Amino acid sequence: MDSASPSIATPAFWENRNVDLPLGYRYAATYAGIRQAEQDDLALIVSGLPAAGTGVFTQNRVQAAPVKLCRRHLSASRGAVGAILVNAGNANCATRTGDAVALACCRAAARLLRLPVNQVLPASTGVIGVELDPKLMVNALPRLGAGLSEDGFASVARAIMTTDLVPKQAFAEVKLRRGTVRIAGMTKGSGMIQPRMATTLGFMLTDANIPVAMLRRMLRHAVERSYNRLSVDGDTSTNDTLLLLANGASGVRPDPKEMAAVEESIAQVAEDLARSIARDGEGARKLITILISGAPNHGAAALLARAIANSPLVKTAVAGSDPNWGRILSAAGNAGVAFDPRKVDIDMQGVPVCRGGVAARFSEAGLKQKLDAPECEIRLTLRGTGKGQSRFWTCDFTEGYIRINASYRT
Amino acid sequence: MDSASPSIATPAFWENRNVDLPLGYRYAATYAGIRQAEQDDLALIVSGLPAAGTGVFTQNRVQAAPVKLCRRHLSASRGAVGAILVNAGNANCATRTGDAVALACCRAAARLLRLPVNQVLPASTGVIGVELDPKLMVNALPRLGAGLSEDGFASVARAIMTTDLVPKQAFAEVKLRRGTVRIAGMTKGSGMIQPRMATTLGFMLTDANIPVAMLRRMLRHAVERSYNRLSVDGDTSTNDTLLLLANGASGVRPDPKEMAAVEESIAQVAEDLARSIARDGEGARKLITILISGAPNHGAAALLARAIANSPLVKTAVAGSDPNWGRILSAAGNAGVAFDPRKVDIDMQGVPVCRGGVAARFSEAGLKQKLDAPECEIRLTLRGTGKGQSRFWTCDFTEGYIRINASYRT
Repeated sequence: MDSASPSIATPAFWENRNVDLPLGYRYAATYAGIRQAEQDDLALIVSGLPAAGTGVFTQNRVQAAPVKLCRRHLSASRGAVGAILVNAGNANCATRTGDAVALACCRAAARLLRLPVNQVLPASTGVIGVELDPKLMVNALPRLGAGLSEDGFASVARAIMTTDLVPKQAFAEVKLRRGTVRIAGMTKGSGMIQPRMATTLGFMLTDANIPVAMLRRMLRHAVERSYNRLSVDGDTSTNDTLLLLANGASGVRPDPKEMAAVEESIAQVAEDLARSIARDGEGARKLITILISGAPNHGAAALLARAIANSPLVKTAVAGSDPNWGRILSAAGNAGVAFDPRKVDIDMQGVPVCRGGVAARFSEAGLKQKLDAPECEIRLTLRGTGKGQSRFWTCDFTEGYIRINASYRT
Repeated sequence: MDSASPSIATPAFWENRNVDLPLGYRYAATYAGIRQAEQDDLALIVSGLPAAGTGVFTQNRVQAAPVKLCRRHLSASRGAVGAILVNAGNANCATRTGDAVALACCRAAARLLRLPVNQVLPASTGVIGVELDPKLMVNALPRLGAGLSEDGFASVARAIMTTDLVPKQAFAEVKLRRGTVRIAGMTKGSGMIQPRMATTLGFMLTDANIPVAMLRRMLRHAVERSYNRLSVDGDTSTNDTLLLLANGASGVRPDPKEMAAVEESIAQVAEDLARSIARDGEGARKLITILISGAPNHGAAALLARAIANSPLVKTAVAGSDPNWGRILSAAGNAGVAFDPRKVDIDMQGVPVCRGGVAARFSEAGLKQKLDAPECEIRLTLRGTGKGQSRFWTCDFTEGYIRINASYRT
């Protein structure tokens, strides 16, 4: 399947992307006055052709109004999607008027774009518990409509930023027998919830022609190895939303043999987006990649990886370039996975620091220097236990995180 | 049961305690050279009469050698305890020689005190993964033996300190029909694991005469409402050990009706100790008490409380005196407990901030000022759901925590 080997671009500003955007989508962003800082806070993504669409959403028991409405629209339209309407600066969660506000804004966008209302998907990110004035969004919509452009992808990626330091985008194209299809993704978030804002959002677009049932499977797979393998602070927001749209504008429908390559490219774009969130974690200076192998099964491997990724003590040790592997071992011991501590090997930056559950010989000074790098790799292997593997991304835990999150909201 | 109503002293240095120490225990502490700073790091607690003893231990899959040996001794001696030998500065965990070292030290102490070896209980706290030289402890033992004194309680409480800023003790006495019994407890810990050291240890002593089976039940109950309702950073150490000894030196055996009062006093001492750990959490400036009511059951209430206590975003908001109740609601939503967000009430410092899942009217400036106090109370009530309650202690999350834990070990 050489012809279908995907070429994946690394996360980059759109100026740097080396592949084209998917065909058939238009974008616009504007400042609607939802957030205090005068910075775009409302955006539209519109597909010229009705796209097949699917989404995954927060598992928090408390779900924002746009999350509930987005689910309902996807279900009512059977996965037909015309547009995404997204705002930053207010999560529209835990508010009296939230459901009505989300619906009113989708209605206004549907009128503007001449779409059935259930083909407009809402998403919001921002502070929880503050009423959102729908007029701000409704009044800004004509401006958005007038500004729609095929080049506006990056402006939307910027409009959904909250405490993010950089916009987050990833691109891929896959050359298939009948032509090329393109994939573009954007995401936001650097803490699961921020003082002024909330949540992780992600939007992935492709111009491939993919039936909605297959699209759902692809998104489930992609999420399992990307967003579900990511933690900044262990807090799941009330607004998390990841959408995948396929509008078929390339005119290319992958044949059954090619679907695996398309699926792989979508998963790679999702991984790039997830990694870019960890790299830009609130206050983070280092991206940490955790690699587990030899676990009883993949699920157990993921539990081990998550326990290490969520340990404040591991994350502060990495911040201090401290090869304190005892904290990694202890965190693994809290994962709820049965293992024999005497069969644990740990490597940091490729340096063996623990063998058979006890200290390996290594130069602390040398490893400390290696840990000053902007990326840190922690590898934990259970010897002779099983074949379970997992890869997980997080970031170091610095005083910057505290500063960002302890600052008063006003 | 007026005659058995317990009088409980608040946590204090022994100089301030207003009740006597339990009879029949002697204490000693010395500097054995285990930690770098020249500060007592080895201590003995000896009961003149063989005491009934019981313990609860870390549930981390990785358990330190002294934890394993302590369990074994308690089981082999059927709960007869003569002494506790405790060191700080080295956790004796994930080491090649750990089991042999722990046993050798207990043997040396048993010889010194003329006790069966299984009546000596070991406990260690400190860095993980560094071999512990048993000679340091064995050589210091004669000094310890010579220094044993009935007044040495506070010196042991100081010797087990690691990143603790203050020693932690709590005292109670219970006046029973046949006389008075006394309870004294000490504990340590301000992070679950520290750079140089590890773990929470706690020792509670009473001179009441209590059968070991009843003592076990009392400790289980006490732990359930104290140490198991405490979190500083969500990391469970490899060395956590809480021991309860009853030597009967008061000559008073509570009659069956009085046992409840003794049990209550022991639980209160355990609560005082647990609260003193939260108050002295690494970098902490504020003690946070979380009160849940109206949950489906007590277990669900504890899950809700723990999720809020472990949320870095709630803890940083309290550090910043930010009445950001949306983070509390969102953290509760991640607890894995089913509830209706529209039935949630939240109060901070007694001020209603959320009613029925949406914002209550309150003065942000006024509440911000109230949140500057050294103690913060967060109350979450599920209306009309059930009768489950839980109380939980944690501390705010400040840049001090990062500074302490990101500093290099040497």
